[in-house]
This record gives sequence, structure tokens and C-alpha cells, in this order.
Amino acid sequence: MTTISIREVGPRDGLQNEAPVPAAAKVELIDALSATGVRRIEAVSFVHPKAIPQMADADEVWAKIARDPDVRYSALVPNVRGAERALAAGFTEVEVVVSASDTHNRKNINRSTEESLAELPALIELLHAGGASAELIIATSFGCPYEGDVDPGRVAGIVERAIGMGVDKVSFGDTTGMATPRRVRDVLTRVARERPLLCHFHNTRGTGLANILTALELGVTQFDASVGGLGGCPYAPGATGNVATEEVVHMLADMGYETGIDLDRLVEAAELAQRIVGRELPSGVLRAGPRYRTIA
Amino acid sequence: MTTISIREVGPRDGLQNEAPVPAAAKVELIDALSATGVRRIEAVSFVHPKAIPQMADADEVWAKIARDPDVRYSALVPNVRGAERALAAGFTEVEVVVSASDTHNRKNINRSTEESLAELPALIELLHAGGASAELIIATSFGCPYEGDVDPGRVAGIVERAIGMGVDKVSFGDTTGMATPRRVRDVLTRVARERPLLCHFHNTRGTGLANILTALELGVTQFDASVGGLGGCPYAPGATGNVATEEVVHMLADMGYETGIDLDRLVEAAELAQRIVGRELPSGVLRAGPRYRTIA
Repeated sequence: MTTISIREVGPRDGLQNEAPVPAAAKVELIDALSATGVRRIEAVSFVHPKAIPQMADADEVWAKIARDPDVRYSALVPNVRGAERALAAGFTEVEVVVSASDTHNRKNINRSTEESLAELPALIELLHAGGASAELIIATSFGCPYEGDVDPGRVAGIVERAIGMGVDKVSFGDTTGMATPRRVRDVLTRVARERPLLCHFHNTRGTGLANILTALELGVTQFDASVGGLGGCPYAPGATGNVATEEVVHMLADMGYETGIDLDRLVEAAELAQRIVGRELPSGVLRAGPRYRTIA
Repeated sequence: MTTISIREVGPRDGLQNEAPVPAAAKVELIDALSATGVRRIEAVSFVHPKAIPQMADADEVWAKIARDPDVRYSALVPNVRGAERALAAGFTEVEVVVSASDTHNRKNINRSTEESLAELPALIELLHAGGASAELIIATSFGCPYEGDVDPGRVAGIVERAIGMGVDKVSFGDTTGMATPRRVRDVLTRVARERPLLCHFHNTRGTGLANILTALELGVTQFDASVGGLGGCPYAPGATGNVATEEVVHMLADMGYETGIDLDRLVEAAELAQRIVGRELPSGVLRAGPRYRTIA
């Protein structure tokens, strides 16, 4: 049985795209997620509170959660300042972001992709010196909301350069849900199979699980997902965010993959997430229940 | 380029699971769909108005739509009485339903699967004598909300018997969205490839497009879908219904498949469907737009 590693990103990528919620609610959600059997949780990001007020309480949240020794918690950082805060807080797994699309990178941080890549070695060195691993998330890997299609060769080139710079893992971010099975194949077949790769799909246009299926066929075993499908898309108000963790686990479990996650507990965590944000979340497995829950 | 044939089932399977809407709205929706380039539309069902009040105006709707000569319209019927009504109305493509699951079939029409199959030859003969083709929809092909898993061998056995009885096509109904790629593979690999097959997936648990991807890989070229993701699931209030036509077309087009459907027009039809039912429909492509609509 193949083991698939799921990273739960609802507390960060999900809640970052929802109206702000209290730190106590985030702590409750992260603790509920830690109890599902998931082995990795992206807990917070260390970003400027003016840029992303939803994450202003990152230190407080991180201080208050019950750290499960079986769970690896990670933080996302946008720059050296964020990396220093993550290290000071004691994180040992840190993610940094560069957009494959120049326009998206400029809109995000007012730099070209090339300029961001030039800063990457110092960031990696800082993280490694501080005892943390460094993962590079390549945003807009499967399409850019400004530029449209993104050249898969450009994405593959960034992978090779980042590996050369010493990153420990590369993640393909489907930032605005533009991936389809064809785009996934186009990118993944250009990257060497032995690379430590992770796919991060949004379900903005319904293709989330189809993309995961394609990535699985191409050997990817690590995926991001967000409990309840928490989150959204800053470019399309009302749009769906990350693929829902319970939809991913539900499909994988029925296909014979092992994730270590208790689906019933995960659905309970999704119910909690829904109460916390106070809106109906888009997860089908949350609404309808897993397929094994038959009518008596 | 492979051509994929989409049957639009929103006016029937979709609206049957929504609060009733006026006949004029149905006519407007069907006419809008006919203008998208879709080649097949399941327009109405001829069922008892007490059982399904949403379809009580089937004759009126069928009489008033603008019949596009490039579109094949079909009707679903539950029994001989319905088949007679469909033929009297002039339909030349008719669908009948039998559940692979005994319990589901009994709950639906108070007969065992075997009893329903025994009535099938007379129904087929009636339809053929009236100049109509007969399609068998095998409901609960990938799982039953009462029984749980359904034996793929049982489904395959029904296919072979139905073909032997003279049905012109067999459709696999994922009636309550219990299919996953594994279940799709389990069923389709047991059925001879040369059979005229169609897959009808619901997106209740998010697997709709992943299931279509799997069926495509196994040679299926005909799929049902519902504009906007119209519809629901009678067993799970608030749950998602059929896979949304524009999500299917959007994914297929980006993968290089030809459907003949103009996606922009289809999204307009989905907007119309949303206005008609007065609730936000679950289609991601409706909410976020196709991936090629970039920000200026």
C-alpha cells in the first residue's frame, strides 16, 4: 500500500483567505487537526500584519497550540525578516515563495522572479543555519491570473536552480486553480522523478482531485490540502480555495492509499472549521459525509 | 483530436432536484443550452406528477422549446406509461432506469432489480416500435446509499443482459456521488470496450472530474453533466448534484478534447440557471471564470 503524505494548510493558506478569526479559534482548529492523524500542518505565516492581518497573531497561535510530537508543523515566510521570526519562534520547517510568473511575483512583492531567486540562497542559508529545512513553493506553476499560461520549462528551470541552491523540497503551487491534468503532466514530466516534490492544488475550477490523480500517476506522494476547503482566491471573490483535505483523504482511502488520517475525525475538524468561519464550506465530503456512511 | 460527447442533463436531472421553477424558465434554459453547441440535451422526464412535481409540465416545456436541428433531445421515463407519453410527445431518444442495488430499486419503485429487468424487454420493444432508441441507465453503479458498495460484477452482468435485450446504449449512473477512480475502473474494466457506454457522475464528494479522467483513460467518450452543477442529492440535503457541464468542458478543452461546446456561452447559460433557481450554484468555472480569462 502506497503511503501519501498530506500537509494540512487550512490554518494558514485557508484562514489567510477568510475574514480574520480569533487566535483561540485557530488554536482549537490546529489542535483538532493534530488529533486526526495528519502528520504535517502548515500552522502560520510570518508576514507583515498590514499585508495579511489574518496572520498577525502567528506568535500567539504558535505559542498556544498543543504540539503533538507526531506532527511536523511548518510556517510560511515571505522574506528574511519572516524567516528570522519563524526561527525565533522555533520552527524547523519553513516555506518560502517565488512565483514562476514575473507579473504575479511583481504584484505580490514588487520584484521580478529573477530578483526573488537571487535572494533565495541567503534565505536558505539563514534557515539551514537556524536548524530549519527550506521548502520552495513555486507559485503560479500551472498558470498565472495575469499572464495566463506559464511555460512548464520555466517552472522546471526554477526547480533545478532551487535544488542547486540547496532547498530541501520544491512545491508546485496552483495558486489560483488554473491547473488541469494536462498542465500537471506538462510540468511534472519535465522534472526529474527523484526530486522531493509536493503538489499544492486549489479547487477553484473543480479540477483539484483530477489533478491529484494525475500527479499520483506521475509518482508524486505529497500533497497540500485545506480542511473543509477553507480559503478562497483573492482574484475571484466567492471562489473556492484549496482542495478540501477530507475530499482528498476520502478519495485516496477508497483507492487504497494510506494517509494515516482518520476521516471521521477530519470531518469533525471540518465542521469545526465551518463554525469558526461562519460560512458554508465547499467540501462535498463535509456536506454529504463519506461514501461509507449508508442510510440505516 | 478526440471528440467527447456531452449530454446536458441540467433541465431534467438538475431541475428535478431543485425547488420547482416555471415552465417558461425551463424553456429559456433549454433554448440557451441549445445555443451553446452541445449536441444532446436531456430535456424532461415523463414521471407521475405526484412523485416528481418538478417535471409535471414536461409536455408544455417540450412543446415550447425551439428545437435545434443540431441537438438531439431525450426524455427519461420510469415505466411503460412514461414511455407512451414520451413517444406521443415525439421523442426519439428515451432513457429508462434500473438500479444495480436491490434496496435502491425497491425504495424507488417497489420492485427488485430482477423484477425491473424482467419488464425491460417490453419497454424496449415499445420504444423501438415507436421509433425511439432505448438507453438503460444503471443507477447506483458505483455505490448505493443504502447498501454501500455495489459488486462491479453485478453491474457488468446487467450491462450484458440489457445489451442482449436490445438496449441501444448503457449509462452508468453515479446516482449519489459514490464513485471514485477506483470504482470507475472496477466497473469499466469488466465491460467490453466495444459497448456503447456513457458515464453519468455526480460531484457529491468532489470526485466528479477525477472520475471522468479515469473513464476517459478507459475509452469512454460520452458523459452526462448538468449546467452550473444544477441539482442535488435527495439523500443529503445541501449536497452537490451532477458534475457541472462547464467544469467538464473547461477541463476537457484544456486537455485538447473537442466537445463542440462554446464555453463562454455555456457559462452564460450557467448564469441563467443560477438566476432561475435563485441560489448560488456550485460550479467553480461559473464562479471564477475559465482559466483563460486573465486579469487585464
